[in-house]
Amino acid sequence: MTKLTTLYQHGTLALLVPGLLAGTLTMGDLLQHGDTGIGTGEGLDGELIILDGTPYQVDSDGNVNVVSDAFNMPFANSHFANYSPLAELENLSQADLEEQLISLTQASNTFFSIKITGSFSAVKTRAVKKSTPPFQTLAQTAKNQSIFTRDQVEGTLISYYSPTLFDGAAVAGFHNHFLSADKTFGGHLLDFHLDKGHVAYQLFDTLEQHLPVDNRDYMDHDFSLDNIQDDIHEAEG
Amino acid sequence: MTKLTTLYQHGTLALLVPGLLAGTLTMGDLLQHGDTGIGTGEGLDGELIILDGTPYQVDSDGNVNVVSDAFNMPFANSHFANYSPLAELENLSQADLEEQLISLTQASNTFFSIKITGSFSAVKTRAVKKSTPPFQTLAQTAKNQSIFTRDQVEGTLISYYSPTLFDGAAVAGFHNHFLSADKTFGGHLLDFHLDKGHVAYQLFDTLEQHLPVDNRDYMDHDFSLDNIQDDIHEAEG
Repeated sequence: MTKLTTLYQHGTLALLVPGLLAGTLTMGDLLQHGDTGIGTGEGLDGELIILDGTPYQVDSDGNVNVVSDAFNMPFANSHFANYSPLAELENLSQADLEEQLISLTQASNTFFSIKITGSFSAVKTRAVKKSTPPFQTLAQTAKNQSIFTRDQVEGTLISYYSPTLFDGAAVAGFHNHFLSADKTFGGHLLDFHLDKGHVAYQLFDTLEQHLPVDNRDYMDHDFSLDNIQDDIHEAEG
Repeated sequence: MTKLTTLYQHGTLALLVPGLLAGTLTMGDLLQHGDTGIGTGEGLDGELIILDGTPYQVDSDGNVNVVSDAFNMPFANSHFANYSPLAELENLSQADLEEQLISLTQASNTFFSIKITGSFSAVKTRAVKKSTPPFQTLAQTAKNQSIFTRDQVEGTLISYYSPTLFDGAAVAGFHNHFLSADKTFGGHLLDFHLDKGHVAYQLFDTLEQHLPVDNRDYMDHDFSLDNIQDDIHEAEG
């Protein structure tokens, strides 16, 4: 059953926009589809990163917690790690790194994952504070976010790249989460400088897009009323 | 392995726009993912409809052929049939039928399939003539299409519905193919009136989106230069 070229996604980025933040997949279920991943909890409860089968949550207080199988999520990705070495890279801004990754992989028309282990500086992450029902919009909810910074930190970056055509379903371009080696710092990456790192790469030929069809709020929502592209790029930027 | 709530898709609608019409999946492979489906051949070689595991092609001469496992396709869908009865409907235009289907299924935010067996009138189909490399754009290629009409015909309609969010990856809304009961007439439906039919329905919670990552023309193409939405809606309208 383990297909090493499949990226699993539960939910869509678009459903977060109007505030469909109910948890519709458990971590136990997500881990059936991978040992590596990223996501967020119900009510945008922190930022998740799964490494070697262990699901870490960076909460809005900056704590790093291991979450249980019962932890619920509105939106998440996972896959079974089978990375190949891509390059040893150093001294790159986020923008320059992402440009190099596009050039090295030649894979911008499909989904892929990047895993970087190494030294980072000027790292800026965020984690949103969990909200409770009735949920507000993504823009409103994301205002309650904490920003964390580290000048120098060793750690692991997990990134998923999605083609522009899937913007709104997924996060178009790179979606980067981070966890420090000492597991005291991490979150959704807003900015960073790569000092030196091992860069590994895994190509996907398949997106397994799972939708929360048993959630009536999702199924009944009129997405034509949402300004999805603008709100996503504001909140995910 | 048979998951009855998964819709398999090979390729994207968007890749047809600039003329990436090479066959990148065989019918034999497509049938591994379903016994029911629709698609088109390499070079837009006719219109495909798979019923009970048999893949029929309506070519641009209007002939209905059963294609071999080696038949190659740039874009196709399939799934394993597990339809439930939805309604007995009669005397509906295509637009009124599609409106009723949205209302009856309450599933416009996910993927689903509709199968209608019954009597149709004023049926208008098209099938594109196969082009050969170097392929031209979808708009250019689709000019070489034949239009077929039948005043009264018994047959089967297979439709896939895709949410607006996936417009460009899939055909947003309903994508309808048809085959007459006597297997002498069919194609991509441009217009029809449903006189009377059994309407069946199958909901999907998962889109398994497979991309032709081994095709360099696909992987190297710069989709930002294509006017995907406009060209798709012109050609698929």
